[in-house]
Amino acid sequence: MDRKRNISMAVIKRLPKYHRYLAELLRNDVDRISSKELSEKIGFTASQIRQDLNCFGDFGQQGYGYNVRELYAQISQILGLSNDYKTAIIGAGNIGQAIANYNRFEKLGFNLEAIFDANPKLLGIRIRDIEIQDIDKLEEYLRSNSIDIGIICVPRVNAQKVCNILVNNGVRGIWNFAPVDLVAPEDVVIENVHLSESLLTLTYLLHEKDEEIEE
Amino acid sequence: MDRKRNISMAVIKRLPKYHRYLAELLRNDVDRISSKELSEKIGFTASQIRQDLNCFGDFGQQGYGYNVRELYAQISQILGLSNDYKTAIIGAGNIGQAIANYNRFEKLGFNLEAIFDANPKLLGIRIRDIEIQDIDKLEEYLRSNSIDIGIICVPRVNAQKVCNILVNNGVRGIWNFAPVDLVAPEDVVIENVHLSESLLTLTYLLHEKDEEIEE
Repeated sequence: MDRKRNISMAVIKRLPKYHRYLAELLRNDVDRISSKELSEKIGFTASQIRQDLNCFGDFGQQGYGYNVRELYAQISQILGLSNDYKTAIIGAGNIGQAIANYNRFEKLGFNLEAIFDANPKLLGIRIRDIEIQDIDKLEEYLRSNSIDIGIICVPRVNAQKVCNILVNNGVRGIWNFAPVDLVAPEDVVIENVHLSESLLTLTYLLHEKDEEIEE
Repeated sequence: MDRKRNISMAVIKRLPKYHRYLAELLRNDVDRISSKELSEKIGFTASQIRQDLNCFGDFGQQGYGYNVRELYAQISQILGLSNDYKTAIIGAGNIGQAIANYNRFEKLGFNLEAIFDANPKLLGIRIRDIEIQDIDKLEEYLRSNSIDIGIICVPRVNAQKVCNILVNNGVRGIWNFAPVDLVAPEDVVIENVHLSESLLTLTYLLHEKDEEIEE
């Protein structure tokens, strides 16, 4: 693929949204779509869409638009979804269990291989046929099993320690739900889901609107 | 407060992070901090920090730095956390239950008032002393109870319908976990947590690093 380098983070963050909308078009048996039609659905401008997709190669055809199936396949590939990923969840509390039970990720090629927790009460319980193991066995497990993505759902104070164990044993992708910014070497990718921060963004915007109304 | 208008979304998105770091400093009994020291912790440049905080008023003092407790209180107020918020969860599946069980939000002033689901098997079950109610009663409930934030955790296909019921009955804040972009009037604030999109950003970046290594 004639792929240009130095894609901006803003473009990268928009790609999964293209992927989601194209999946919906496929479900609705739409074969092709113009950047203008896609724009009306997705809410980005048509020129933004053309510019974004041009970063990755020469999709679309003047006067024809995009072939939905092809564009979906190519964006899937760009997103790395042509690979399968082995994942492990560390921390089987509320969020960890919710992620473990969420079957949508499997369809995208994410295979949950193991779950770890420190709470003795949880050990041995099975979530979708995967037994929760003692977190003390994480390191040993990683030495003999290759994991692509570690999903950190432990409390804030333990998150960096878990991250270190994962990284020192070859895990290169970290999906972090703990409300802390983890430190890792440059070749490790960390993606955070900071739920409290999302909620506080919501209250900020609500509060701002209230002030507008009061004025 | 001498608050400037038209704060950029980028600044707004950084505020909860300041809030989180200042909370940690308070826990560690730190009284004051310079923008330089804060920069080392939080990872933004010192000039970025001064610029961000200047958007909201005249914090900090040359040569003294920021009074941690005062800055925390002011950022809390800016984030709208001086108010309490009444929340309701719609959809008590994996994510809905995880959010309901997460007690961190309560400490920030978010009080969960009600939980709704369509699954008859879940009705009557209590999560932290709140009984799961039939989603058919949501509209009736909202007519006699004021809810500030509706937390949507229903499947994609039902999310817009739930959003409409919430909005038509006075809910002005929507925290949306369904993988869909909701449509609502301008005076409603929608904040999305799109977990799949976060995961696909991670795989994109992993895939990109693999390619760098292969070259």
